[in-house]
Amino acid sequence: VKKLAISIGDLNGVGIQIALESHKRVSKWCKPVYCINKSMLKKAIKELKIDIDINSLTIEPVSGDFDIKPAKISKSSGDYSFRSFKKAVDLADKGFVSGVVTMPIHKKAWEKAGVEYKGHTDALRDFFKQDAIMMLGCPDMFVGLYTEHMPLKDVPKTIKTKKIKEFLVDFYKETKCKKCCVLGLNPHAGDDGVLGNEESKINRAIRLANKELKKEIFDGAFVPDVAFTPKNREKYNYFVAMYHDVGLAPLKALHFDESINVSLNLPIIRTSVDHGTAFDIAYTNQKVNNQSYLNAIKEALRLSKK
Amino acid sequence: VKKLAISIGDLNGVGIQIALESHKRVSKWCKPVYCINKSMLKKAIKELKIDIDINSLTIEPVSGDFDIKPAKISKSSGDYSFRSFKKAVDLADKGFVSGVVTMPIHKKAWEKAGVEYKGHTDALRDFFKQDAIMMLGCPDMFVGLYTEHMPLKDVPKTIKTKKIKEFLVDFYKETKCKKCCVLGLNPHAGDDGVLGNEESKINRAIRLANKELKKEIFDGAFVPDVAFTPKNREKYNYFVAMYHDVGLAPLKALHFDESINVSLNLPIIRTSVDHGTAFDIAYTNQKVNNQSYLNAIKEALRLSKK
Repeated sequence: VKKLAISIGDLNGVGIQIALESHKRVSKWCKPVYCINKSMLKKAIKELKIDIDINSLTIEPVSGDFDIKPAKISKSSGDYSFRSFKKAVDLADKGFVSGVVTMPIHKKAWEKAGVEYKGHTDALRDFFKQDAIMMLGCPDMFVGLYTEHMPLKDVPKTIKTKKIKEFLVDFYKETKCKKCCVLGLNPHAGDDGVLGNEESKINRAIRLANKELKKEIFDGAFVPDVAFTPKNREKYNYFVAMYHDVGLAPLKALHFDESINVSLNLPIIRTSVDHGTAFDIAYTNQKVNNQSYLNAIKEALRLSKK
Repeated sequence: VKKLAISIGDLNGVGIQIALESHKRVSKWCKPVYCINKSMLKKAIKELKIDIDINSLTIEPVSGDFDIKPAKISKSSGDYSFRSFKKAVDLADKGFVSGVVTMPIHKKAWEKAGVEYKGHTDALRDFFKQDAIMMLGCPDMFVGLYTEHMPLKDVPKTIKTKKIKEFLVDFYKETKCKKCCVLGLNPHAGDDGVLGNEESKINRAIRLANKELKKEIFDGAFVPDVAFTPKNREKYNYFVAMYHDVGLAPLKALHFDESINVSLNLPIIRTSVDHGTAFDIAYTNQKVNNQSYLNAIKEALRLSKK
């Protein structure tokens, strides 16, 4: 049975509850290895009033001992969540587990703890000195982002045939998608050049990528605002968007609760829930949606089979 | 009972079928005035094999006599659809009807017929020498577009406080929306300036618009990719997007069949179906979805009450 390292996330948030409440279900698919020590795990279980046998959980201890303070941005929980993450990545890098699933961290808590990264993807790029591809979605619909965290005005300059071609080939190698819908940049995909001409470069990149792969994987460039209509979603499960919001606004409109975040193009497999620490409901005995976590586990396992 | 002029659209397409099949239902809400002559109406009814009493229909004759050729891009049908549209606009402009609802025209057919406009909105701007606001959607979710048919690279330059403020005030005056969610331009709405700083202008425009209206109508600038999540859609029915695709991709993902197109900021009321001539199913005896048409009628009536 495959092992997955679970980076436990910010212990003042909702991640640990999701992990523990999903343990039984997840254990049918793989062996989750929780990157947390017994002492912190005990505190969380007590605080959550969850009925679970601590000895039934496989852990990889991360040193530390502090009081859990629900919904609090704290240096100690920021530091702990970063070290849990590093431990999980290390386990995957050494081959002890098949991949890493990350629970949400709090960016401000990382900042307080002096962590030099803004988030997981950032850190992974630096650990492995490789340009990770960010993909978000759920089994019905995954969206790969050609550009992500940059001002919109800088996006058009990044549209270059060779770079897009390489992105697409990498995207295919990582996802093994059968078909992928590539979005244009401009409204109406440029309307034959009347509303912009970057599509000619995107079209050429698509042709070159298909040629290199010797398969017709990529279709496009698609008119962005009709790429996600019900009819088109029946045809495609994979999409590539030229920029952040044109891909993620439809995704989050349709699949907010189920979405996950996947880092492609790295030496290790890493998936993540696509929600935050949800401080508003952490440790309040409220029901927490674990769909994103379950999908993150499933996708990590699927990717590890390739 | 209010009258609405129905611009009949391209007679080789699906519009006339939708109009006739919806006639009974629509007649409960208003009196539709079809801009078509008896001869063409007879031909369409015969071709469609629809059981309807031609004398029960109120028409405003548009001269012309040509053979209907299903799914054909033709000069004569292009010319006829343009004159039907002009007649409908004229009726509204003279106050004989409360508004205009347009069926889909075929742009290439207009081109063939020597019509100098690319589409309805284009023509309306020229007829009235006024800058129409384009809004798309359905009762659950309307999206106003601050910019529409321009290359993406030109969008950031258009973000100016005064222009956005004026747009928002006009948008409110036309829609009388109670609350409206205004989207930012950049991913994460700029993340406090790290990913772009146009949001500072959008924020200022929102404050100025609310001040001028003496009401807190507009909220934002919102993070674009979470603006359309289920939770946020419970709070807002009206959205303003800074550019075409970030507003329309989520709209069409969620409400493709029901969506309509509304022209605001004109001396007349004009709504339209948000689909094309659907040549693939025209005159094939297939069931045609009329949800967009029904919503266009309803919205025209609602707007005419203000």
